[in-house]
Amino acid sequence: MRNIQVSELDRRAVEDQGVEIVERKGLGHPDSISDGIAEAVSRALSQLYIDRVGKVLHYNTDETQLAAGSASPAFGGGEVLEPIYLLIVGRATKKYEGQTLPVERTALEAARTYLNETVPELDVGTEIVLDVKLGEGSGDLQEVFGEDGAQVPMANDTSFGVGHAPRTETERIVLEAERALNGSYADSHPELGPDVKIMGKREGDVIDITVAAAMIDSYVADMDDYVAAVERVEEFVTDLSHDYTDREVHVQVNTADDLEEGSIYLTTTGTSAEQGDDGSVGRGNRANGLITPNRPMSMEATSGKNPVNHIGKIYNLLSTDIAESVVEEVDGIRDLQVRLLSQIGRPIDEPHVADAQVVTEEGVAVADVEAEMVELIDERLANVTDITRRVIEGELSTF
Amino acid sequence: MRNIQVSELDRRAVEDQGVEIVERKGLGHPDSISDGIAEAVSRALSQLYIDRVGKVLHYNTDETQLAAGSASPAFGGGEVLEPIYLLIVGRATKKYEGQTLPVERTALEAARTYLNETVPELDVGTEIVLDVKLGEGSGDLQEVFGEDGAQVPMANDTSFGVGHAPRTETERIVLEAERALNGSYADSHPELGPDVKIMGKREGDVIDITVAAAMIDSYVADMDDYVAAVERVEEFVTDLSHDYTDREVHVQVNTADDLEEGSIYLTTTGTSAEQGDDGSVGRGNRANGLITPNRPMSMEATSGKNPVNHIGKIYNLLSTDIAESVVEEVDGIRDLQVRLLSQIGRPIDEPHVADAQVVTEEGVAVADVEAEMVELIDERLANVTDITRRVIEGELSTF
Amino acid sequence: MRNIQVSELDRRAVEDQGVEIVERKGLGHPDSISDGIAEAVSRALSQLYIDRVGKVLHYNTDETQLAAGSASPAFGGGEVLEPIYLLIVGRATKKYEGQTLPVERTALEAARTYLNETVPELDVGTEIVLDVKLGEGSGDLQEVFGEDGAQVPMANDTSFGVGHAPRTETERIVLEAERALNGSYADSHPELGPDVKIMGKREGDVIDITVAAAMIDSYVADMDDYVAAVERVEEFVTDLSHDYTDREVHVQVNTADDLEEGSIYLTTTGTSAEQGDDGSVGRGNRANGLITPNRPMSMEATSGKNPVNHIGKIYNLLSTDIAESVVEEVDGIRDLQVRLLSQIGRPIDEPHVADAQVVTEEGVAVADVEAEMVELIDERLANVTDITRRVIEGELSTF
Amino acid sequence: MRNIQVSELDRRAVEDQGVEIVERKGLGHPDSISDGIAEAVSRALSQLYIDRVGKVLHYNTDETQLAAGSASPAFGGGEVLEPIYLLIVGRATKKYEGQTLPVERTALEAARTYLNETVPELDVGTEIVLDVKLGEGSGDLQEVFGEDGAQVPMANDTSFGVGHAPRTETERIVLEAERALNGSYADSHPELGPDVKIMGKREGDVIDITVAAAMIDSYVADMDDYVAAVERVEEFVTDLSHDYTDREVHVQVNTADDLEEGSIYLTTTGTSAEQGDDGSVGRGNRANGLITPNRPMSMEATSGKNPVNHIGKIYNLLSTDIAESVVEEVDGIRDLQVRLLSQIGRPIDEPHVADAQVVTEEGVAVADVEAEMVELIDERLANVTDITRRVIEGELSTF
Repeated sequence: MRNIQVSELDRRAVEDQGVEIVERKGLGHPDSISDGIAEAVSRALSQLYIDRVGKVLHYNTDETQLAAGSASPAFGGGEVLEPIYLLIVGRATKKYEGQTLPVERTALEAARTYLNETVPELDVGTEIVLDVKLGEGSGDLQEVFGEDGAQVPMANDTSFGVGHAPRTETERIVLEAERALNGSYADSHPELGPDVKIMGKREGDVIDITVAAAMIDSYVADMDDYVAAVERVEEFVTDLSHDYTDREVHVQVNTADDLEEGSIYLTTTGTSAEQGDDGSVGRGNRANGLITPNRPMSMEATSGKNPVNHIGKIYNLLSTDIAESVVEEVDGIRDLQVRLLSQIGRPIDEPHVADAQVVTEEGVAVADVEAEMVELIDERLANVTDITRRVIEGELSTF
Repeated sequence: MRNIQVSELDRRAVEDQGVEIVERKGLGHPDSISDGIAEAVSRALSQLYIDRVGKVLHYNTDETQLAAGSASPAFGGGEVLEPIYLLIVGRATKKYEGQTLPVERTALEAARTYLNETVPELDVGTEIVLDVKLGEGSGDLQEVFGEDGAQVPMANDTSFGVGHAPRTETERIVLEAERALNGSYADSHPELGPDVKIMGKREGDVIDITVAAAMIDSYVADMDDYVAAVERVEEFVTDLSHDYTDREVHVQVNTADDLEEGSIYLTTTGTSAEQGDDGSVGRGNRANGLITPNRPMSMEATSGKNPVNHIGKIYNLLSTDIAESVVEEVDGIRDLQVRLLSQIGRPIDEPHVADAQVVTEEGVAVADVEAEMVELIDERLANVTDITRRVIEGELSTF
Repeated sequence: MRNIQVSELDRRAVEDQGVEIVERKGLGHPDSISDGIAEAVSRALSQLYIDRVGKVLHYNTDETQLAAGSASPAFGGGEVLEPIYLLIVGRATKKYEGQTLPVERTALEAARTYLNETVPELDVGTEIVLDVKLGEGSGDLQEVFGEDGAQVPMANDTSFGVGHAPRTETERIVLEAERALNGSYADSHPELGPDVKIMGKREGDVIDITVAAAMIDSYVADMDDYVAAVERVEEFVTDLSHDYTDREVHVQVNTADDLEEGSIYLTTTGTSAEQGDDGSVGRGNRANGLITPNRPMSMEATSGKNPVNHIGKIYNLLSTDIAESVVEEVDGIRDLQVRLLSQIGRPIDEPHVADAQVVTEEGVAVADVEAEMVELIDERLANVTDITRRVIEGELSTF
Repeated sequence: MRNIQVSELDRRAVEDQGVEIVERKGLGHPDSISDGIAEAVSRALSQLYIDRVGKVLHYNTDETQLAAGSASPAFGGGEVLEPIYLLIVGRATKKYEGQTLPVERTALEAARTYLNETVPELDVGTEIVLDVKLGEGSGDLQEVFGEDGAQVPMANDTSFGVGHAPRTETERIVLEAERALNGSYADSHPELGPDVKIMGKREGDVIDITVAAAMIDSYVADMDDYVAAVERVEEFVTDLSHDYTDREVHVQVNTADDLEEGSIYLTTTGTSAEQGDDGSVGRGNRANGLITPNRPMSMEATSGKNPVNHIGKIYNLLSTDIAESVVEEVDGIRDLQVRLLSQIGRPIDEPHVADAQVVTEEGVAVADVEAEMVELIDERLANVTDITRRVIEGELSTF
């Protein structure tokens, strides 16, 4: 029997608190670039191992470091002066049963492909230098996710994961606005770069959304063009926000601009990494895509970790997944927080404690939902290796 | 008038919650080494600028990356095989009014001095390679902390800081145990390396303290010696914990050891960075020295940031400082959480909101303490530049 | 009046010596790759400066270092395991009259383009990592080659250049064989990689040509295929050699192969840099494309040096150019050696001494050719800036 | 029977030629620093292998690259601004029969020790960053120099070595002046840095010696002091030169100085690597310590190569050693040039040809000395492994 505890959450739902702060660093932010490459490398290595030896071998690539370049953006098209330098750091098994595996080449390929997709205006190789240092890991390998089916690994560390659901209105606006800007909006508005940072602040029933959006100089002819581009983003986010809330929403874009001084957020490549903004893994969004100081957060850097045996990664993704499934299937939940704590020496599907704390909706008692919740959580825990599979297949985002 | 709000905290005091988790990565942990070097470099650059040009110029050195080495520890003394590689990344002003400033040499000196003090068994230059990449920052410098006295800088970003007080019993045990182990204990027990990681878990009134302590092979003759060394740490932490709690405490040290397999936590240099554990800035302890998932945390990496004008750094240190002063001077507070949110374009001593949420002791109302709290908070905000000074002088720790 | 001296060369013509040794490292040899990139970067920077500021500014990029990768070639197609690492080192002016120039990006672009052309099977970015460290040069710039016409720069160093003509038969075979193999032959025989090293040894009238030719695995199906490919090269070089000599010629290809052991010269990318062979600038061919221990050689690394003001580069290319022109226009010369020695503080077209030593053909006295030679040499010296122009335009090879 | 050929050298003795040019880059020159470190690393690895496994394993460390720093020297003491970066590149066997060998740490230790001895004013770690990239070599190891006595290895490449004796007067002055300046002179004149470059030019009976000598700023109070220091070097070299010649000698030191402009050769560390001068292995002195365009030279970079099995290294050192022994023991030789050419697949003590070309003194015929020479050469070839031993023990210099 798994140790699953359901109790009342000892605070108001975040949606009902007086002040709420939420942040998301978009795909092109230097920290997110680091997260994204770390995770892309991780997926590629998992796939390499499965293809070559039938199972995932030991690795961790959760330490990408980005050192910013310098650039001189200009209306109509500027240029990068000094390339960004990005160092992929980690451990990976290079030899297995007589085979030598191209882990460094695979890492570089994955990083290049990821960058080409995510920051398409950045020329990989001349505007960013990709370098790699993958050491051998420690000797004791755990190989548990193979073609013969998945086994549930043992926990070898005390680790903690936390997830929440449902998202508050502010959280949804912040998350969906970044996704839409970096999705459909960017497709039809090439002047918007992927380095979009969104801060949401709610005081009572007033939501302030602050967007920092890197514009790409080759698609911006002059200052009027720039101002129009900023206004389009503002309108788009304002419109979008009404899909998620009836509260009052104020959207501001590139508030640090000083048009008279000509100090605006114009870039050549669409990311601030081109000029002075360094980045690294685990410094930005948590596993659920957001930074939420109103909620407990794990410090664990999820991106780049081995999805087969790194408990911290698995438990952060799994707790989020559990919270979302429970809220989707069980009625009457206003806020749910799921915590998983590992137990050294036990299979990871048997956590020391799986702790679901809930704020129920008015008229609903914890007892009303407890049984259903326990059942769902139990089922999800039993299928823990699903998380591993979905990470490798790229279905789950880690930042 | 500063916008200072005092209200009741919308949850139980952490001390009274059912489950509490606390962690601290000790000085020799790869993430803490990165934090420590980033901050040592930052202090050295501040001092360099003050000495040479009379004020602190623009810099940020918050992106140190450590790529682990490999080693073969052995009873009586093993050896490092491949050096650790540590890259100091950041921005720093190199030229000012015709003077060229030795920022990279200064950074390397600071890092070497810090490592020699903190991880003395690690030979800098052969067991760890220190490298540096400091770019020029963006052009707009803010110089506000000089010999003519300090000015309060303007906020140029939306940033958030959070602090708490008093520490719970578990928090105190975790923090003080690491400090004592890396202090008086290590002085008299050279076999204990600085890479000590402590995890505290409290369920109700039972506290479990798990210590991972890197032993240094040249001071450990054989397995019996090792076992004795581990037991000494266990006793020491158990004794120490009774200074901070009357609760039941269980201490476990190096629980992942498998003595029969000879798999123990033995190192040559006292840090796991020698063998496979990478590290980087901002991945470990928050500004108050702890990782506390039960409390709101800022994702901001405090170490290495410019203490004159980086609001995130200042507000995280200041909110902690405010919380601690208030609790020290005002009676009747069981738990206090202070949040500071910046307001773009306003001096940083005038935050958008300074929000103090409090759990009072039984019989004390928020109204009873509000006035005194507001006064204290106001005074601290007025003296915000004190934080900068104390950081530069090394009085405030950032991790 | 220029100080031009013509005298009899104090030895037999190399063609008439008993033993002669000649070597050429082909385009894909790790040292030649370093030379080629250094020179490609140099040309690109010259062009950048001319385009942007109308004249060539101070730079030197003569220090590329290549650290080999590892690979596992296999019949039908193997793979690179660890990428080659190539560091472009040098100095370049980054700021000029308020403009900032993209010297590092330009260097990376030039290197990538050069590699794509020269070692097409090598995927730049995943099979070779290109990195760059260009410091600022020393302060005293010399800008002499601009759009307003070229000025002749002053010599600021004691430097020496030496050139010869005509090439001996062995020299011609070695040089032309490499060019043909890397030219027409490779076009129609994709299995031949660019890393072709040719050693020529003549004893009396017997010439031994030893070719080390890297075969590309994806075009070689099996051992028979490999043996046939080697034989084709042998036949081709044997045929070609008869265009340049009537002497007895023996050609051997990949003599270190041990077919039974399966130890053959098979590569994945066509260069030995993929597996263990490092390279750097100035270690291979001299400015005339050959290594000729029978002749005086300059140690100067010509590739990557600034062609406007680096006397060593200019004098090595110019002395070769002079020797070749003289031999082409003046009859009766069997061997000619031209030495140029700079004079500090004088324009470089006025060398301290231009010293032409000649072996005349039977029946021709030095006096018979002296006047014509002096005139030709004087004319060439007067047009020294032609060398600069031809280097920048890529007409002159430096290795 | 070894194939040893003695014949008359087909030119005048270099001592009797009209123009002679000789150069030596002193110990502190960036190219010599690279050579010196490469060779120090090589010796340390040889010693490591002998100590740990009883024989020298496969390695080559002949590719050190130095990227210059920047500095601001000043009378009385300036400072380094940006550190020099030095990358040790090469191959070394890391695992042997279950043992893992600390090759990278050993390389860094050797480099640091060498620099501390050779460029004592340069602070290793802050004024120069030492980094290392040692790959695994190719698989086929040759282990031939062990505790069980030395075996003569087989030649696996066509390689060529050349040596000469005796040194001309100009050669001796250049070599001995550098040694004395970097020896006794520097001991008593701390203002002289190790970066001393000496160029000797003889035209007929007039010898011009040009010295470029880096002065160390902390020992030079002002311009008068500097001028006096330069004059002292000039006097010292002038005096020394009379020990080696009766010819007319002119010595000039730091001729590029412009005292009025304040443009002088002042450094903080004693090497021009601190400011803009890059360096790498094999670009400076040949194995005999000199650059001698009047004599055949090998392009082979001797420093850093494996002294057990690298024929190029062994043959260059051995041919020099043979030439010097023969001249010492056999009377009547005015100039001797020894060439060794390897024969693939034969032991290296049986070269394809050992070719001694001699200019005898007046009244001496080649036939008079031939037998004695052949005997001596034969003996030296038989003891070829002595070269290996002397290299490992540091008795033979390679640059």
